Amino acid sequence: MKTYHIAVIPGDGIGKEVVPAALNVLHTVAEVHGGINFETKEFPWSCEYYLEHGKMMDDDGLEILKNFDAIFLGAVGNPAIVPDHVSLWGLLIKIRREFEQSINIRPAKLFKGLTSPLANPRDFDLLVVRENSEGEYSESGGRIHKGEDEIAIQNAIFTKKGTERAMRYAFEVAKTRKGHVTSATKSNGIVHSMPFWDEVFNEVKQEYPEIETSVNHIDALAAFFVSKPQTFDVIVASNLFGDILTDIGGAIMGSIGIAPAGNINTNGKYPSMFEPVHGSAPDIYGKGIANPIGQIWTAKMMLDHLGEVEMGEKLLAVVEEVTASGIKTPDIGGNSTTNEVAEEICNRLKQ
Amino acid sequence: MKTYHIAVIPGDGIGKEVVPAALNVLHTVAEVHGGINFETKEFPWSCEYYLEHGKMMDDDGLEILKNFDAIFLGAVGNPAIVPDHVSLWGLLIKIRREFEQSINIRPAKLFKGLTSPLANPRDFDLLVVRENSEGEYSESGGRIHKGEDEIAIQNAIFTKKGTERAMRYAFEVAKTRKGHVTSATKSNGIVHSMPFWDEVFNEVKQEYPEIETSVNHIDALAAFFVSKPQTFDVIVASNLFGDILTDIGGAIMGSIGIAPAGNINTNGKYPSMFEPVHGSAPDIYGKGIANPIGQIWTAKMMLDHLGEVEMGEKLLAVVEEVTASGIKTPDIGGNSTTNEVAEEICNRLKQ
Ligand SMILES: CC(C)[C@H](C(=O)O)[C@@H](O)C(=O)O
Ligand SMILES: CC(C)[C@H](C(=O)O)[C@@H](O)C(=O)O
Repeated sequence: MKTYHIAVIPGDGIGKEVVPAALNVLHTVAEVHGGINFETKEFPWSCEYYLEHGKMMDDDGLEILKNFDAIFLGAVGNPAIVPDHVSLWGLLIKIRREFEQSINIRPAKLFKGLTSPLANPRDFDLLVVRENSEGEYSESGGRIHKGEDEIAIQNAIFTKKGTERAMRYAFEVAKTRKGHVTSATKSNGIVHSMPFWDEVFNEVKQEYPEIETSVNHIDALAAFFVSKPQTFDVIVASNLFGDILTDIGGAIMGSIGIAPAGNINTNGKYPSMFEPVHGSAPDIYGKGIANPIGQIWTAKMMLDHLGEVEMGEKLLAVVEEVTASGIKTPDIGGNSTTNEVAEEICNRLKQ
Repeated sequence: MKTYHIAVIPGDGIGKEVVPAALNVLHTVAEVHGGINFETKEFPWSCEYYLEHGKMMDDDGLEILKNFDAIFLGAVGNPAIVPDHVSLWGLLIKIRREFEQSINIRPAKLFKGLTSPLANPRDFDLLVVRENSEGEYSESGGRIHKGEDEIAIQNAIFTKKGTERAMRYAFEVAKTRKGHVTSATKSNGIVHSMPFWDEVFNEVKQEYPEIETSVNHIDALAAFFVSKPQTFDVIVASNLFGDILTDIGGAIMGSIGIAPAGNINTNGKYPSMFEPVHGSAPDIYGKGIANPIGQIWTAKMMLDHLGEVEMGEKLLAVVEEVTASGIKTPDIGGNSTTNEVAEEICNRLKQ
């Protein structure tokens, strides 16, 4: 029996609904497999935790998390009670950075049983490889002057190392897919960081002569995600551009509620973290109608990462089957609850 | 007879095809009106001009342009012969900045006769007000170190004045529309400039108690442009975010080839400039199949700006009529040429 130690952080809002539902599914996967087992430990770190303790996580939180095989996170943020930059930078982005989860991978594909908002959605199946540690999300910057003269300066910082790492990851993963990498740039408007990004892309692509490449400005690329998503395979993007593209990816699949993500540590020093693309959605929290598929597909990515690829494939197939059968939450046109969807997935897994 | 003096810059690629077509239409508008007249002067500034003269425009180019009532521009850029940042910052962005065209307005609406890629496109009609003079498009920044240690730093600079100006413009225009302004932010990830943006938005909205407001992060907003564009009225966005959103706006209308834009000088010191959202599309240049609607709708925006609102409305109605009649270019499913579309618009205007 192989045991995986998983740190579970439900976080805020619907995270507290979809994480238990997805864990239910994960334990069923283990049961069906027979030879694996998930030992989970839950941490209450969240905005509510912040209100009580004045911090988003325990002081030794990172020390504790370090020993797990993976982190399974729901959603962080509840701006009504804690400012986003406090909650997110104190937990989500903190873990991404401290654990050198420098790559964020986010797939989008035509999902069986889901109605894409696209009229004629051809069979798209793409993967965004997002730089996850630097770029536009930077604590460097500040303000000068007051009142009418106030100026805010934000520094975006792109290192050769970080940029290369994201690009090499994209090229490596493209080898296992359709063999095409698209670079998301904006060097015509953003004249320091993005020409640098282009240069590094031109260098890295020489290392992979077997991989085809293309380059698009982010504005055009965002439009192409709508007009011809089926033409893409792997897209490598900066922190901000990857963030934007993957929400569009969720939209064209039919709901941001199903999009999964993995924050990947590439140097083997720390655990990776798996969290869906969607947020904590305080507006629907408590109704039991949050779509658990994003969290469950995220569990599938965690299974892949742990080496349980076959169980991952099986799980995703069952999720699509259940969706196609009409058992789905209201956001994608059904009238089932979070738990009903998860239960049905468990039942079909066991068949 | 009222005469408008228009500076015409066809620029590169399909700019050289769609601008003459649109001018043809513009002169027909004048003819039909009877009391107005366009005196146009063409300037050959472009990448080809750069190859010959080592600069994108004449040294006294700005001096000359200053005296016109408006500038009508096609598209700039041909990266095969001149790097984008040279061509764009030497002509397009140079005029935007030197002429203090600090607002870029870009509408998107469900266009009659066009097939939106959205399955169920409800009647959206939105306007993006894009900050056009600062923000992420900044020449401030640079590099340090070489080789594996190289770092590129890009400064995004947001001034109170520039941010306020864009927001006030958005609120003012919302008064003449559905009375709602959405702010595009990303203050959860971009922690200096975007919280500043949010603060200014909160201040400015106090000046307009009659206008409803909402705030979305750019990732979610990009997804909403796909999943529920009909819920938006006016969106105010930074330079980069406005750029991205308006290409998505083009995509959901059915083609980026129809999206128009106006670069508006708000202090009355310099002319405004009208240019479509699309680029120079070197790949289709020379075939006579470029969609002229973006440029013609842009002419409509110029008419509005000059005060010829009624003729502008009439023109847009005819453009929709012609599109609906099936006379359209291949990018939107027809088989007409650039000139055939423009000719048909002229014919129907005269009826
Ligand atoms: C060509 C480029 C610099 C420009 C921009 O990003 O402003 C274009 O995309 C636009 O939207 O007008
Ligand atoms: C919450 C926010 C900081 C975060 C991000 O932009 O990284 C989220 O949008 C995501 O995509 O994981």
